[in-house]
Amino acid sequence: MIAEPRHIVPPGMLDANLRVRGRVPYAIDVVLPGMLHAKLLRSPYAHARIVSVDATRARALPGVHAVLTGPDLAARDDIFPYFGPIFRDQAVLAIDKVRFVGDPVAAVAAIDIDVAQAALDLINVEYDELPAVFNVDEALEPGAPIVHDEPRRLGQTFADIIVRAEADTNVCNHFKLRKGDVERGFAEADHVFEDVFTSPPVQHVPMETHNCVATIEAGIIRVTTATQMPFAVRASLAEIFKVSQAKVRVTTPTLGGGYGAKTYTKVEPVAALLAQATGRPVKIHLTREEEFVTITKHGVKIQMKTGVTKDGRIVARKSTCLFNTGAYADIGPRLIKNGGYATGGPHYIPNVWVDSYAVYTNLPPAGAFRGYGVSQAAWAYETQMDMIAAKLGWDALEFRMKNLLEDGQSVMTGEDMFDAHFKELLTTATARIGWDPAEEPRRNGSKVRAKGFACIIKGTVTPSTSTAAAKLNEDGSLQILSSAVEMGQGAETALSVLAAEGLDLELGQVSISRPDTDVTPYDQGTSSSRNTHSMGTAVGMAVADIRRQLLALAAEQLEVDPADLELVAGRVQARGAPSTSIAYGDLVRASRSGNLLANSVYASKGGLDPETGQGIGSVHWHQAAAAVEVEVDLATGKIDLLRYHAGVYAGRIVNPVQAELQTEGNIAFGLGQALFEEMVFDGGQLQNGNLGDYMIASIEDMPQEISLGILEHLESNDIHGIGETSLPPAMPAIGNAVFRATGVRITDLPITPEKVLRGLRARAVEESAE
Amino acid sequence: MIAEPRHIVPPGMLDANLRVRGRVPYAIDVVLPGMLHAKLLRSPYAHARIVSVDATRARALPGVHAVLTGPDLAARDDIFPYFGPIFRDQAVLAIDKVRFVGDPVAAVAAIDIDVAQAALDLINVEYDELPAVFNVDEALEPGAPIVHDEPRRLGQTFADIIVRAEADTNVCNHFKLRKGDVERGFAEADHVFEDVFTSPPVQHVPMETHNCVATIEAGIIRVTTATQMPFAVRASLAEIFKVSQAKVRVTTPTLGGGYGAKTYTKVEPVAALLAQATGRPVKIHLTREEEFVTITKHGVKIQMKTGVTKDGRIVARKSTCLFNTGAYADIGPRLIKNGGYATGGPHYIPNVWVDSYAVYTNLPPAGAFRGYGVSQAAWAYETQMDMIAAKLGWDALEFRMKNLLEDGQSVMTGEDMFDAHFKELLTTATARIGWDPAEEPRRNGSKVRAKGFACIIKGTVTPSTSTAAAKLNEDGSLQILSSAVEMGQGAETALSVLAAEGLDLELGQVSISRPDTDVTPYDQGTSSSRNTHSMGTAVGMAVADIRRQLLALAAEQLEVDPADLELVAGRVQARGAPSTSIAYGDLVRASRSGNLLANSVYASKGGLDPETGQGIGSVHWHQAAAAVEVEVDLATGKIDLLRYHAGVYAGRIVNPVQAELQTEGNIAFGLGQALFEEMVFDGGQLQNGNLGDYMIASIEDMPQEISLGILEHLESNDIHGIGETSLPPAMPAIGNAVFRATGVRITDLPITPEKVLRGLRARAVEESAE
Repeated sequence: MIAEPRHIVPPGMLDANLRVRGRVPYAIDVVLPGMLHAKLLRSPYAHARIVSVDATRARALPGVHAVLTGPDLAARDDIFPYFGPIFRDQAVLAIDKVRFVGDPVAAVAAIDIDVAQAALDLINVEYDELPAVFNVDEALEPGAPIVHDEPRRLGQTFADIIVRAEADTNVCNHFKLRKGDVERGFAEADHVFEDVFTSPPVQHVPMETHNCVATIEAGIIRVTTATQMPFAVRASLAEIFKVSQAKVRVTTPTLGGGYGAKTYTKVEPVAALLAQATGRPVKIHLTREEEFVTITKHGVKIQMKTGVTKDGRIVARKSTCLFNTGAYADIGPRLIKNGGYATGGPHYIPNVWVDSYAVYTNLPPAGAFRGYGVSQAAWAYETQMDMIAAKLGWDALEFRMKNLLEDGQSVMTGEDMFDAHFKELLTTATARIGWDPAEEPRRNGSKVRAKGFACIIKGTVTPSTSTAAAKLNEDGSLQILSSAVEMGQGAETALSVLAAEGLDLELGQVSISRPDTDVTPYDQGTSSSRNTHSMGTAVGMAVADIRRQLLALAAEQLEVDPADLELVAGRVQARGAPSTSIAYGDLVRASRSGNLLANSVYASKGGLDPETGQGIGSVHWHQAAAAVEVEVDLATGKIDLLRYHAGVYAGRIVNPVQAELQTEGNIAFGLGQALFEEMVFDGGQLQNGNLGDYMIASIEDMPQEISLGILEHLESNDIHGIGETSLPPAMPAIGNAVFRATGVRITDLPITPEKVLRGLRARAVEESAE
Repeated sequence: MIAEPRHIVPPGMLDANLRVRGRVPYAIDVVLPGMLHAKLLRSPYAHARIVSVDATRARALPGVHAVLTGPDLAARDDIFPYFGPIFRDQAVLAIDKVRFVGDPVAAVAAIDIDVAQAALDLINVEYDELPAVFNVDEALEPGAPIVHDEPRRLGQTFADIIVRAEADTNVCNHFKLRKGDVERGFAEADHVFEDVFTSPPVQHVPMETHNCVATIEAGIIRVTTATQMPFAVRASLAEIFKVSQAKVRVTTPTLGGGYGAKTYTKVEPVAALLAQATGRPVKIHLTREEEFVTITKHGVKIQMKTGVTKDGRIVARKSTCLFNTGAYADIGPRLIKNGGYATGGPHYIPNVWVDSYAVYTNLPPAGAFRGYGVSQAAWAYETQMDMIAAKLGWDALEFRMKNLLEDGQSVMTGEDMFDAHFKELLTTATARIGWDPAEEPRRNGSKVRAKGFACIIKGTVTPSTSTAAAKLNEDGSLQILSSAVEMGQGAETALSVLAAEGLDLELGQVSISRPDTDVTPYDQGTSSSRNTHSMGTAVGMAVADIRRQLLALAAEQLEVDPADLELVAGRVQARGAPSTSIAYGDLVRASRSGNLLANSVYASKGGLDPETGQGIGSVHWHQAAAAVEVEVDLATGKIDLLRYHAGVYAGRIVNPVQAELQTEGNIAFGLGQALFEEMVFDGGQLQNGNLGDYMIASIEDMPQEISLGILEHLESNDIHGIGETSLPPAMPAIGNAVFRATGVRITDLPITPEKVLRGLRARAVEESAE
């Protein structure tokens, strides 16, 4: 990608010092003169018709500048008050119906939060409650209440999305994969296993909740927002306000975490509509309680049927995945594709059949979440792999090794695998925890220790586009225009490294822009672990263009053939004759252009056939393995992680420190979801929507010993994003270890002490019955 | 420049409504959390050695965060504490010496302005006063005190600057022009006239005084500043802080007027150094009194010798121009070139000799000012033209018409004139005021009415560079990345028009960026009436590139030859078959790039030989004429303007409303400088440094009747900037009319009532003596 790279190893994140000292400005830190504060009135019903909204008293409250309601918005011709990346199914404020407990019904902009909150209490909403559905089974029953009884409003945003919208049902979308002949596969199988696996909805819990500040002045809608997708937000606001995208400016400072929660439009439209109504800047900043019902990870039920031959080859798999996408589609209709095909796993399976559904219910909307459906799929297939091995008395590792994909074997979406490292990753992972198939669980008092592992495959959004620009200054320093979002993952550092390497500059001579849709080039979004690969490639291409310009200018100035020139430390010099050289700055001056400019477009190719799900699923395949040793207290059911190895394939590692931190972050996410994270609903009402009752991993929960195996393969010169890859194997690896320690097989996440104890009790009852 | 233009006529300035309502955010409106306020301690001496600076008590004052002094800065190795566009002769805070009354000696950053002001009073500076020089004659006398006795520190910024630095004198720079053989010319002349003309220093008086806010965080120096030249400020800060330009970010909101005052570095370095010292954002905002001594128009003394034949042809001219550039060079060393060659005037003169000097004195620095030296030159030559005609009994108009440049005749810098419209402009101007050579002044009581006129030529900075970028969005709207500075002149509107025309879009589909050196492409600066021409051309080129991309994409999509396609209202369509068409947005989608990107570089060519001043003086020549009828009260000397016609050649007019407003602004500037503007110094101390004592034109001073003749010549498709062109003829036109009314010839601006009365008295004495 970049010729003659001199690899720069940065000292971690370039702005680590600032971050640690709390000097990084987030969107929440924006303060504008005259700025108002917004609060949302939310539905107490999971499903209800709105009979009336009376905001008269709220509007009269001193300090209140505007109150907006769904009926207000619906009555206007100058706006289109709906958003959503695929279906425009989410009203900015509920129109006609509310669909989940927490659905915004009215919005207030006031001089401060307290006045805004007080105003909410003065709004009278009359509801007519409707029957509701909360889980996918209920939702798919004939005669079930229909969450969206209005016609589907389809957008035009996605090249890779397969939409199969079935009206008059709660099926939001359906993805099909048909590889080989699954029935023949099962016929060939010696053993067929069919199991059901579930994962609950969980929360992203970014430290920074959703927030933005919007202003509208002279027809320009300007939003500073904590989003992973500035261009998606821009498109959405332009559609809502019926203006051209050139009149919407979205800027994004660094994020306090994203994890998928901050993809697509969220709080920006209501803030912008309030800014319009008040003629003032309006800030909205969700409370943690509101954050819980804004977007979640999909709860999923996967029915998985797998056929194996007696010699241990998987010959067929059929999955039915029911993703509970909640009240609004968000990106669910696309996520079911990735989560659906992922059930094919990192194994060579000639015959695969997947039906994956996004199902509307009256829960808060589910969307992108670190792992993007793959965690739920991996939980199913890597748990089932272990179950099969256990049932057939096979060595779980050997069973995996027989089936893990090798180069040239077709993956579930049909294309040939290349750059496969599954076996290497899993071999290393199991070796690191001292896996021995003959080893028995070791018991010490009430505590039992045992080991488990898992190996996964994950695609990245394909096709996808990143564009970038480069500007070489008259002093030879370099500026990159990129819309990559820095959300603590180190995007800026990684791009700085790649840009500096391309021109043999020091990191101090490079700057990377923050997204500003007015001036920085289009990027699809910082998601899907795509940034270092996609934007990194785009930046590399733009820098390579600058490089070509420098060589051409230097060839002219030095009267040397460009082929005989090289770039060294900010100068172009003749190979082998370093005294014949010229500084970049002098070349810029010679060009009389003030700066050298270059643009680039990186668009990966691919996509799947809508009927078969076959094609190019991913521009390259992300690969990870995990191995863990657990200690389970049989008296309490409590599970501790003693040792944990995370292995991930990185292609080229751009920033070793950040690569490790990302992987450790995945361990924290993974163990939380394995052991305790779960959003608990009762009649659609979230029961643990706060960080007192909803647990995330703390430093105390981390494995006592962590080893990381970030596999680099410099020859390929391909950069794999690793922001998510090591997350999906965590849950099945832990579940498999717990099974080995206790004999209790849990197929519904999380693996709580209560479930372990219940399992132990059930086993005891069984054993005593025998 | 742009193919197939559909000319858009904008409704004046696009943001006029905002401006009128005070909703335009200026740099002064920036408020940052924790922001400190800076004040400068200034020298009370015109010339003195600094013996000591003691800031101990100031530093101890509660609320003071930092005090910086010249010695502090001089002692540091990590900075280079000097700036100046050509010579780095201006210390951020005076080091060793102060050179004018008002020279900054120390700077304070404090929690508010009052504390900062109080701290200034606690700083003790011991001075050792030195003899000073205030006017150019004193300064050039042998043995005169030397303002800059340190070696000249030369920068590397300018391609077109001729530097002839003479050490150990007060000559800051010397420009030479040698066209033809001036001595032979005078030998051929039948009459030779030699006169001296002076213009005083005057003030720009932008409504917004100099100000900026600086922050330094994580090694990034960020300055939001009211500058006409963001890139010059960036380069200067990078040099001062010894960092790469990629680590300096200069952003510029709209300016509250510039007029040349806001070119190059001014208050930014001291703000940035205080930000560094305090770790906080620091704002500096000059008072009006400080503004007066920050930068001025050059006071000038021009000795002009002109030889004419008896049939009225000018055959030779020799000028010696002494520009009083004050204590620091600023752009004076270059301005003397433009002001110097300008003395050749808009006439064909085969033999011209110019020596133009920038002279250091102990006055506040002089720099760029609307007219850029040409006003002072035009005052000289157009007054002398009238004096010659009067002395020889010629019709002043006929004398002009015999000599005004025509296409193909060589201008003073040697190149052939093209696109000449002087005669047309002057003919129209004189006709509009009813010029009749036979007409006698009309007297009514003590009041006399008479007419006068003038015609001028002005170059624009050449060579010069503007670069731009264009971004076509997925909805077909367009974004322009430009570093043009909007300072009320309507840059944004003009560029919007040009961009929209290039793609046949509506103005609402286009946005123009504000300068942000991190992301917007290089521009030399918004000065020299260059923006609409240079940046307009660069924008046109970038848009033309987008156009080519659209045509190529459409040719593929529609299967039509690109030559048979045209752009109509946001679609590419087959000529004559509008039903075969495709929207821009669909083409962007087809490209799978998210946006179409283009860059452009417009670099005008030219430059002068350092020994002869011959070459290409200007990429094209700005041309204007003025004609005026005045009424002079012989009892009081008061001058009223009855009728005023301003004629200017515009090439193509992009925005008619703004073209008129710019021309009216020039009339206001011109009449103020003609009649009353003058900075009065006593021993280097400004006597009228406030808007109570220093008068600028008010609406009451405007001519009773104004007519504007903005000449358009669409065929040339060349856009001339007209921000300054109609200013220089104002002063001589008025002076010539006053002479006709009174018989009093004033050669030293301004033409005050006192001077008129003194002239009338002198004439009366002469007449009575006869």
